[in-house]
Amino acid sequence: MIQNSSIEIVEVSPRDGIQNEKRPFSVDEKIELIERAVAAGARRIEVGSFVRADRVPQMAGSEEVIARLRLPSDVVTIGLVMNKKGLLRALETPIGEIGAVCIASDSFGQRNQGQTSNESVDVARDIISFAGQEGRRAQVTIGAAFGCPFEGEVDSEHVVEMARRLADAGPVEIALADTIGVAVPAQVSALIGRVREAIGALPVRVHLHNTRGTGIANAWAAIEAGTTTLDSSIGGIGGCPFAPRATGNIATEDLAYMLDRSGIESGYSLDRLIETATWLGGVMERDLPGLVSRAGGFPKPTI
Amino acid sequence: MIQNSSIEIVEVSPRDGIQNEKRPFSVDEKIELIERAVAAGARRIEVGSFVRADRVPQMAGSEEVIARLRLPSDVVTIGLVMNKKGLLRALETPIGEIGAVCIASDSFGQRNQGQTSNESVDVARDIISFAGQEGRRAQVTIGAAFGCPFEGEVDSEHVVEMARRLADAGPVEIALADTIGVAVPAQVSALIGRVREAIGALPVRVHLHNTRGTGIANAWAAIEAGTTTLDSSIGGIGGCPFAPRATGNIATEDLAYMLDRSGIESGYSLDRLIETATWLGGVMERDLPGLVSRAGGFPKPTI
Repeated sequence: MIQNSSIEIVEVSPRDGIQNEKRPFSVDEKIELIERAVAAGARRIEVGSFVRADRVPQMAGSEEVIARLRLPSDVVTIGLVMNKKGLLRALETPIGEIGAVCIASDSFGQRNQGQTSNESVDVARDIISFAGQEGRRAQVTIGAAFGCPFEGEVDSEHVVEMARRLADAGPVEIALADTIGVAVPAQVSALIGRVREAIGALPVRVHLHNTRGTGIANAWAAIEAGTTTLDSSIGGIGGCPFAPRATGNIATEDLAYMLDRSGIESGYSLDRLIETATWLGGVMERDLPGLVSRAGGFPKPTI
Repeated sequence: MIQNSSIEIVEVSPRDGIQNEKRPFSVDEKIELIERAVAAGARRIEVGSFVRADRVPQMAGSEEVIARLRLPSDVVTIGLVMNKKGLLRALETPIGEIGAVCIASDSFGQRNQGQTSNESVDVARDIISFAGQEGRRAQVTIGAAFGCPFEGEVDSEHVVEMARRLADAGPVEIALADTIGVAVPAQVSALIGRVREAIGALPVRVHLHNTRGTGIANAWAAIEAGTTTLDSSIGGIGGCPFAPRATGNIATEDLAYMLDRSGIESGYSLDRLIETATWLGGVMERDLPGLVSRAGGFPKPTI
């Protein structure tokens, strides 16, 4: 049923995880989070985004974070860009991978980045092509692919068509994002299946939020549908501004627990993840949504 | 893939949900919880247990709760019993269904009910037979079927053998319980498959905790494996005394959300569940683990 003996996890806590947090993270704290995540096993990690500091204050200083990082050479750093201006900023840095973002619904696209859905595809295609010409890896995420906070249902045929147009521009992968955490497993399986059919051999990454408790179930459905890469955040941090009391990304430690117990390699140390989540909860001065860091891993025999 | 257009949910908040809570629930509060759960759609519901009040103080007064309940005639009430003495108490009440409990590991069985695993099967068989002779429905739950807090791994062959011996006694169903919330989807699928093979047409219910974030994923795996009945608690309440900071049962509202969005009938109203979870959080004076009551259901179009 499961086709892969290993799953790649992209750690998103330093970007999606903190971008909507009220409490500002200093550059030093961001660097510490990234370094701790890498020490726990992260080998692909979002480290910042090249957006307007007045719109996303938490992401100010991404250039400084990237400049000061000292990571093992097998770690791929990812920076998000929403437009050509952001891409030009990114290309001035040694960022390892460009993440473009487009949105499956017009209402969300206009609020998130001032673009309709189709405009966001056009912009993302340009970003991917230009990054490629400059010799950088580029991938793209389709946000709100499973539902929109303003429009409700999103037409999956439109998402498939977006993926097809994006694939033509030559990204290294396409991600489907449940930005607001509304997806359910059957929907995840079905959409991945249709997108994979449409884009051939190009890998499909999946980005999930646990807003309604279905995040880990959706992760398992994605793995069963052939996804080899999933996004998650240590501690499960990452609120959505459109769902203020909601929890965030699926927690890396909960995902890693499921993978470990399923005999699927993730490259992470569960103990180090739990330590890091506990440290992060201390920094953020609250209980984080991830559960394995509270409960512990699988019990060791005591008798 | 999914064989059923509807799934039955057994509401366990009034028993498993509250039994380890420090704050005492009054008989009036228990009755209100039961009546609200039924108004939200519950048609099978744990309403108490016949255990020693000095060991589980929260379950004192189960007889009074049952005597005072005024529920629609299609609601089946469940009371748990651990031994013959408890069964005799239960048979003095109009409880609709007897739930026997046995445990897959010796260490947990001895701590939970003073019985080894095999002794707990013997006792449960007697309870089931005697309840049947008295004209009462009886079912049985195999606790710690996916892992033990003291022994770690539990031998699944032993669980299958327990199920086979229990089935001979004539229960209306056998439940597999992930009492401490360690299971993962592949394990759930595999164990349900083996148990179903061993016990023929007898239904398998599944009882899951979300202690490590995998509860809803396990629920979906159970449904895919042919389970038609799942336990859950409104608000996701239900701590385990062996994992003090851990969250409880899978939340009824999160399960119902997944089923609704998957086109599977649960008989519950999601809006009423959210209202009830919100009320229960007020009674318990804290945020409950269930997530849909914070995030809301699937967004209605606002444009």
